[in-house]
Amino acid sequence: MEQDSKQYVAEAAGPHMEEEADLEARDPESNSLSQPLLKRNRTLSFNPLAIVGTKVSHIESLDYEINENDLFKQDWRSRSRVQVLQYVFLKWTLACLVGLLTGIIATLINLAVENIAGYKLLAVIALIEKERYFMGFIYFTAANFLLTMVAAVLCVCFAPTAAGPGIPEIKAYLNGVDTPNMFGATTLIVKIIGSIGAVAAGLDLGKEGPLVHIGSCIASLLGQGGPDNYRIKWRWLRYLNNDRDRRDLITCGASSGVCAAFRSPVGGVLFALEEVATWWRSALLWRTFFSTAIVVVVLRAFIEICNAGECGLFGKGGLIMFDVSDVPVRYHAADIIPVVLIGIIGGLLGSLYNQVLHKVLRLYNLINQKGRFHKLLLSLSVSIFTSVCLYCLPFLAACTPCDSSHADSVCPTNDRSGNYKQFNCPKGYYNDLATLLLTTNDDAVRNIFSTNTPSEYNPVSLLIFFALYCVLGLITFGISVPSGLFLPIILMGSAYGRLLGMAMGSYTSIDQGLFAVLGAASLMAGSMRMTVSLCVIFLELTNNLLLLPITMIVLLISKTVGDTFNPSIYEIILELKGLPFLDANPEPWMRNLTVGELADAKPPVITLHGVEKVSRVVEVLRNTTHNGFPVVDDGVVPPVGLAVGATELHGLILRTHLLQVLKKKWFLTEKRRTEEWEVREKFTWVDLAEREGKIEEVAVTRDEMEMYVDLHPLTNTTPYTVVESMSVAKAMILFRSVGLRHMLIVPKYQAAGVPPLVGILTRQDLRAYNILSAFPHLARSKSREKH
Amino acid sequence: MEQDSKQYVAEAAGPHMEEEADLEARDPESNSLSQPLLKRNRTLSFNPLAIVGTKVSHIESLDYEINENDLFKQDWRSRSRVQVLQYVFLKWTLACLVGLLTGIIATLINLAVENIAGYKLLAVIALIEKERYFMGFIYFTAANFLLTMVAAVLCVCFAPTAAGPGIPEIKAYLNGVDTPNMFGATTLIVKIIGSIGAVAAGLDLGKEGPLVHIGSCIASLLGQGGPDNYRIKWRWLRYLNNDRDRRDLITCGASSGVCAAFRSPVGGVLFALEEVATWWRSALLWRTFFSTAIVVVVLRAFIEICNAGECGLFGKGGLIMFDVSDVPVRYHAADIIPVVLIGIIGGLLGSLYNQVLHKVLRLYNLINQKGRFHKLLLSLSVSIFTSVCLYCLPFLAACTPCDSSHADSVCPTNDRSGNYKQFNCPKGYYNDLATLLLTTNDDAVRNIFSTNTPSEYNPVSLLIFFALYCVLGLITFGISVPSGLFLPIILMGSAYGRLLGMAMGSYTSIDQGLFAVLGAASLMAGSMRMTVSLCVIFLELTNNLLLLPITMIVLLISKTVGDTFNPSIYEIILELKGLPFLDANPEPWMRNLTVGELADAKPPVITLHGVEKVSRVVEVLRNTTHNGFPVVDDGVVPPVGLAVGATELHGLILRTHLLQVLKKKWFLTEKRRTEEWEVREKFTWVDLAEREGKIEEVAVTRDEMEMYVDLHPLTNTTPYTVVESMSVAKAMILFRSVGLRHMLIVPKYQAAGVPPLVGILTRQDLRAYNILSAFPHLARSKSREKH
Repeated sequence: MEQDSKQYVAEAAGPHMEEEADLEARDPESNSLSQPLLKRNRTLSFNPLAIVGTKVSHIESLDYEINENDLFKQDWRSRSRVQVLQYVFLKWTLACLVGLLTGIIATLINLAVENIAGYKLLAVIALIEKERYFMGFIYFTAANFLLTMVAAVLCVCFAPTAAGPGIPEIKAYLNGVDTPNMFGATTLIVKIIGSIGAVAAGLDLGKEGPLVHIGSCIASLLGQGGPDNYRIKWRWLRYLNNDRDRRDLITCGASSGVCAAFRSPVGGVLFALEEVATWWRSALLWRTFFSTAIVVVVLRAFIEICNAGECGLFGKGGLIMFDVSDVPVRYHAADIIPVVLIGIIGGLLGSLYNQVLHKVLRLYNLINQKGRFHKLLLSLSVSIFTSVCLYCLPFLAACTPCDSSHADSVCPTNDRSGNYKQFNCPKGYYNDLATLLLTTNDDAVRNIFSTNTPSEYNPVSLLIFFALYCVLGLITFGISVPSGLFLPIILMGSAYGRLLGMAMGSYTSIDQGLFAVLGAASLMAGSMRMTVSLCVIFLELTNNLLLLPITMIVLLISKTVGDTFNPSIYEIILELKGLPFLDANPEPWMRNLTVGELADAKPPVITLHGVEKVSRVVEVLRNTTHNGFPVVDDGVVPPVGLAVGATELHGLILRTHLLQVLKKKWFLTEKRRTEEWEVREKFTWVDLAEREGKIEEVAVTRDEMEMYVDLHPLTNTTPYTVVESMSVAKAMILFRSVGLRHMLIVPKYQAAGVPPLVGILTRQDLRAYNILSAFPHLARSKSREKH
Repeated sequence: MEQDSKQYVAEAAGPHMEEEADLEARDPESNSLSQPLLKRNRTLSFNPLAIVGTKVSHIESLDYEINENDLFKQDWRSRSRVQVLQYVFLKWTLACLVGLLTGIIATLINLAVENIAGYKLLAVIALIEKERYFMGFIYFTAANFLLTMVAAVLCVCFAPTAAGPGIPEIKAYLNGVDTPNMFGATTLIVKIIGSIGAVAAGLDLGKEGPLVHIGSCIASLLGQGGPDNYRIKWRWLRYLNNDRDRRDLITCGASSGVCAAFRSPVGGVLFALEEVATWWRSALLWRTFFSTAIVVVVLRAFIEICNAGECGLFGKGGLIMFDVSDVPVRYHAADIIPVVLIGIIGGLLGSLYNQVLHKVLRLYNLINQKGRFHKLLLSLSVSIFTSVCLYCLPFLAACTPCDSSHADSVCPTNDRSGNYKQFNCPKGYYNDLATLLLTTNDDAVRNIFSTNTPSEYNPVSLLIFFALYCVLGLITFGISVPSGLFLPIILMGSAYGRLLGMAMGSYTSIDQGLFAVLGAASLMAGSMRMTVSLCVIFLELTNNLLLLPITMIVLLISKTVGDTFNPSIYEIILELKGLPFLDANPEPWMRNLTVGELADAKPPVITLHGVEKVSRVVEVLRNTTHNGFPVVDDGVVPPVGLAVGATELHGLILRTHLLQVLKKKWFLTEKRRTEEWEVREKFTWVDLAEREGKIEEVAVTRDEMEMYVDLHPLTNTTPYTVVESMSVAKAMILFRSVGLRHMLIVPKYQAAGVPPLVGILTRQDLRAYNILSAFPHLARSKSREKH
């Protein structure tokens, strides 16, 4: 038995949970492509590090467990009915505010993007009409360059965490991993302005991902009462000062973001449920739904105003972004072939995209590490490349004569939007590639989804479009601007979908525009691996209910095909960033390892006594970075009158509470237990909700060092525990199901002298990668299939 | 401290978990309306009884935990890759089959109902056209009577569990409560035929709830390989022989049922997620989605066939049941008033409906208890009353002249369906009440949802319709036929919705048909308290995406209003039936009670030794009905060389596994531990998956009684445990989150002589009602708000 060598050291000093990072100088050259970007020690005590916004940062776990100590129980008992109602009211008000603000900000972003990009395009079109092609090119490229620069400079200098979509970090947050600076006020502002700049610059990225992040930022800021330094210390807000309520609010924010991005309230809720959230309760489903309903109301109100012409170039439109409901959906058994085909292609391309993007992101990471200037240079290069391609490629396309059935106002157009762009063509002709390229991304999607226009696009133009967006989709995502993945994937997917529809010719009666929709859906499923939420988002985007059955089949096939090759793009990014995300399914080999064996591989657990010397508390806090310490009582007399000298596991005390004790100097001159009123005089539950503070800030005199402190009233007496014989697989299920930060391991033996605690497990200890580093022999069975 | 009086009796004989029921003779007279129908003892050992299909039955808990004993681990290690793939393939094949069969059966039910009801109505209409009103009445009533009789006799005599919707029982099953005879072949057949009869008989009930039950029955039967007595003992199926996989399959079945009922694939998935399922995994979301996709494909295929005219009176139509997409949705800020109004009314009426239905069901229960004849009589009386009302009330309505814009073929009609029924009116006139009453329920919904027909209905007719369906909705639900709640509620709700739309007159520009839809949605939310799933179901039913924001607001308001008065109708039925459903949220007062105190209130726990005498095993099995026994080893030497005489908690052994040991006579002549190969020779994992068998069937000779049995290899060494100081609230969260049947309580003290186990908790021990019976002082704080 492996346990023979175990030493029950109950009071040894030494780190056990989240060790002080010993940041190795990282050597970019040795960075193999098959390894995570962050290296870790090959033991079971890990550096909680991750790449956050291209920087390596310390990350912390969140505490979703209810900390049931004496003070909490007293407070809970003393809460009046009014206070409980206040709390409920506050939660709903905040959910409402999250929806309201997300809706307003999303509309403002839309307005800004449409106006900036609109005036830019109109000016370019005016130059082209005068055949001043080179001036047009200069103007187009310069405008895009400047817009990208604004976005990139903001991101690089003020908020590196605002780059990228932010969805993986939100996903990690809801799983219990707090990445620093993700939800701050600076991040929010940079994200908003950066997103406007990047999208208006015509880069191949969407505002959808950033909107999810914006929604979550708003939720987080509202939940904590404002930015870190200027918080409103409103009494009511204190009720919400815990990780659980913040988590719920951020879930509302994420779904509001999706809802605002796609005008898809149900899709937003389902996206949060399927893709982002780790825990889900029926009550939360309802509150999220409420938030998205508010968003829709706000969007509707703005659409009313804009339809009255108050929004500049914003244009008129309804709640449905890419309406394809004007075409009847007729399909028969024979249509199963193109549908299956599109699903398979979507799965293959999606997984290929994930694979290549993975490599590109690694490469970009090497560039980004070299400093701000390199990051900026990379972003601006991509912007110039994009501008050149968007402007020059349409010259390759031949001019197509307009269909005689169209009115002159429809074809050709020189408008900002419009489906048949004249570009460099004579009157009566249009340039199909310019229709797709020289426009905003939203309009490009609208144009490629256009229904009842079977001969609008030349296959060669679509091929050029597809190839270009494949390249752009890969090189744009990793640059230092806020960027979403949805729209690039939709553009790519719709191109090959429409191409396939053309290739099918008269074989099928399904419209080419619908093929484009299906292509977009299949690539989304192939890359992001969502099912139900994507289905609903596409339904709400396109308003074609009859397409639903086909969409479902396409999504199922694409996801299945994609899953056989690699994980979803968000999981790849999580892995790249080194975020300690806990998966729902334990690895099969985890059944062969017990938590006892896992605890043996860690440094001995540090415990405190129920009544502890101040010096020891200070020493423990100074020498470790752990966030929870088990509290054990020696020599107690158990109630049944057994042998004296029994030990008792009293519970777990948090680091922040120990700091509070030291700060408030709640010391005792003799070694005794305190009464309830003594604690209540000194601490309120508001103090306990406070999470800030460092041991370095606390000054303790030499005299005080010799005094005692009674930890019992502040100890969480009901931590979740497992017996040492529990398998890691089951322990992990428990850890994730109830959302823990610390899990205590109790011995399976009962005898005098056995300590009441074998060890303590945290998130890092349960991660497959870390366990395999410490137990390499388990890796042999790693290749086995999960079931 | 309450624990002072605790006796650590480790080996006392006596029941602790699910005691042999001592069925009190239940006195119907004393049945107060505020009490559950089943009485329970005022201790913490409960009779697991529930009213299943109007009979009081024993119910069992399900075991969703993975039973990690030595044999499982060996088996798991020895499973080849091919076997794992077989298992995965089987799961998906079964999910596909569930969808396929549910789709086919749903279509057949539809065909049968439409044809039977259609020919019945055509005959009645023919008689009315000849002004033979009385003959028509006799014919109508007699046909309905006979159809009801078929349904009721089948239900009463062969499968009492087939009565009602079945959704509460499915909800309980997925929560871990196995109600007997719910998913058998007889139930399935009776439910199919009964549902056809009851719906065709024009009773105020739907086939939606029954279809959910049918889908679940199909899933359960497929999962276990056929009906109980004729199971296919196919080797592959053995892989699925556990509660977890069966649970997943039944979830697929439930969503397939909803999908087939409303032709709403996404709504089906969400219904299963929001209303039915207790546990949910991302993989399950996907598989459920697959099942519903198959259902839609099947429905589509049948619709193609029927549109070719092969289905008799089934008629032609598309995938959308109640299409209201032909009317544009225009709304402005002022429309918030009718929308809020409809939401509030829906909430009030919904909770009132729940309240009154609760009382009616109690009353019906008293009648049903008197025997089969009374049950039959009740059902038939309701049928006659329904027939009389449906036939006679239209005579009260005045004839309305047809709108001149309508063609003669549209108004009036004498067709089976059709929106303007001529009934007793002269040519050119129609009877609006007959349009609603003398038709199938589906057509009635279609007619009341009819858009662009603002003057079709007279308010008085709608009032009569509303009043009638309020009465019918209350008296029909509890009779002994398969009955769903969806359609009655939709009919009731649409009536007042349309009335409100009329009352609004020109104040709003929203169509009256849409008001009817909103009314239906509001009453559904007010009674069933669903949000997202209802929203999607209504979207998929009506194909009007622009109505979505209003629907969301209405649902939110109705649910909020309803929740302030009483729980949802399904929760009320669960409570009435006495099913031990575990709620997601623990009651607040549960924080003030520890599991140790709970264990004290129970009889002492019965434990077995690792190597136990056969006679003791037999004795324990004979004298208790518990399904799990903790296994404890005395006098072991812990690995760290501490005092001898340590005790060790080895794990938990299941009753079925003990029975297997006795059946296979796996006895040892001396007291020793066995080797791995010895077990493997005797037992396979197939034996361990077997759940049948009774102690009475096992014969053990007197010699064998003196022999030993080594329980170690069959013991689940990784049961979930809590420390005795854990609060009941947190223990319950754990219990429900990971889906347990037994939870062991370990002591917080460590000393020689302390037994390694304090007690064992089961589902019944954690139910609020049961705890309050044993700890009446806690009831004082019961009224506190949850938070």
